[in-house]
Amino acid sequence: MNEEQILQRLAGIIEGRKLVNGGDPDTSYVAKLFAKGDDAILKKIGEEATETVMAAKDARVSGDASKLLYECADLWFHTLVMLAQYDLTPQQVLNELARRQGISGLEEKASRKDA
Amino acid sequence: MNEEQILQRLAGIIEGRKLVNGGDPDTSYVAKLFAKGDDAILKKIGEEATETVMAAKDARVSGDASKLLYECADLWFHTLVMLAQYDLTPQQVLNELARRQGISGLEEKASRKDA
Amino acid sequence: MNEEQILQRLAGIIEGRKLVNGGDPDTSYVAKLFAKGDDAILKKIGEEATETVMAAKDARVSGDASKLLYECADLWFHTLVMLAQYDLTPQQVLNELARRQGISGLEEKASRKDA
Amino acid sequence: MNEEQILQRLAGIIEGRKLVNGGDPDTSYVAKLFAKGDDAILKKIGEEATETVMAAKDARVSGDASKLLYECADLWFHTLVMLAQYDLTPQQVLNELARRQGISGLEEKASRKDA
Repeated sequence: MNEEQILQRLAGIIEGRKLVNGGDPDTSYVAKLFAKGDDAILKKIGEEATETVMAAKDARVSGDASKLLYECADLWFHTLVMLAQYDLTPQQVLNELARRQGISGLEEKASRKDA
Repeated sequence: MNEEQILQRLAGIIEGRKLVNGGDPDTSYVAKLFAKGDDAILKKIGEEATETVMAAKDARVSGDASKLLYECADLWFHTLVMLAQYDLTPQQVLNELARRQGISGLEEKASRKDA
Repeated sequence: MNEEQILQRLAGIIEGRKLVNGGDPDTSYVAKLFAKGDDAILKKIGEEATETVMAAKDARVSGDASKLLYECADLWFHTLVMLAQYDLTPQQVLNELARRQGISGLEEKASRKDA
Repeated sequence: MNEEQILQRLAGIIEGRKLVNGGDPDTSYVAKLFAKGDDAILKKIGEEATETVMAAKDARVSGDASKLLYECADLWFHTLVMLAQYDLTPQQVLNELARRQGISGLEEKASRKDA
């Protein structure tokens, strides 16, 4: 399964967990997040970002980056839940990343930051 | 350009900004991050996560999610820089996400969290 | 009760929740955090910081800052737990803040950042 | 200087850095934050929380907690700036912490979390 399929498929599954689409908070973790609403989802972004940072620090000590991969996947996963909550898609995020490349490459950010 | 190409291409460009690959901290934002090292990159994860959360809160008030897309792209972008710093690839993160789907679907996380 | 008493007393109570001091993870939230260890406590720092930021955004919309006060108290409280976990005291943090004042006032940070 | 004096004095100095009180963004770091507004200040909360977490991870490896003290002071300092931005005082945060103690002690939080 290539990357496109993975993100699209994940986004599709997450969309199906919305309460309006029949998601059941009693059996689905994602449906439960949707039931709790914006703040519960956004809190997870902060939480997973922190766990990612801690896993990265641990990886330097242990020499094992597997937990970092795992936490980064958790972070990406919860950004997909957040995007769905705001009726956005991962493709739109990727398009924004591609747009930056298209205009002036990755250096665009640098110039913006320097501004 | 499909999603796979975007993430792979971005990861490739970022890899090329490493100092060992000729990245120049004086002209490239990403090379400058690599020159600063782990903590500077990880600090950006926490920073961009916070900006994403703030943009999401603003989106509910303004009804405009464009800043949220922008900040989420920034967050993903810096996770790509972090992955490169730890010699990991976005494909590995996607594989981890697919693996979770493959075994028991998105509900795996729920059961794990309940455990 | 003045501020000094509050922070000292809180730190004392938290210290008493350490497992070596008889804290019981089954009945005490703080003892449970100590039982889980570093990462559980540090994750709370990231989580409470995110909740503080969200409460601040909400305060501008609602005109009511009571939730912000509450979340900021939660954030300070968990930094006290973290300090105890690392055998540090709030007085040491306050001394560091006073030291910065003593040397060159609050502007010290500015010059440091500009450096 | 006791704790009460330190927090009150810091809050007073920070208040004096507000633009309406004559703070000068060109010479004062705090006045510059006030000039930038809510999001710049809140972003610092997320940033300093992340730096605190990283310093705590480092402290376990190095056995030296001095950077953790330093970053925790930075975090507290920026919460004081945030409180001032929302016309709140550190005393109000301490009162909230004391109130929790007064009602049912530190265990109140545990029961709330369990609810």
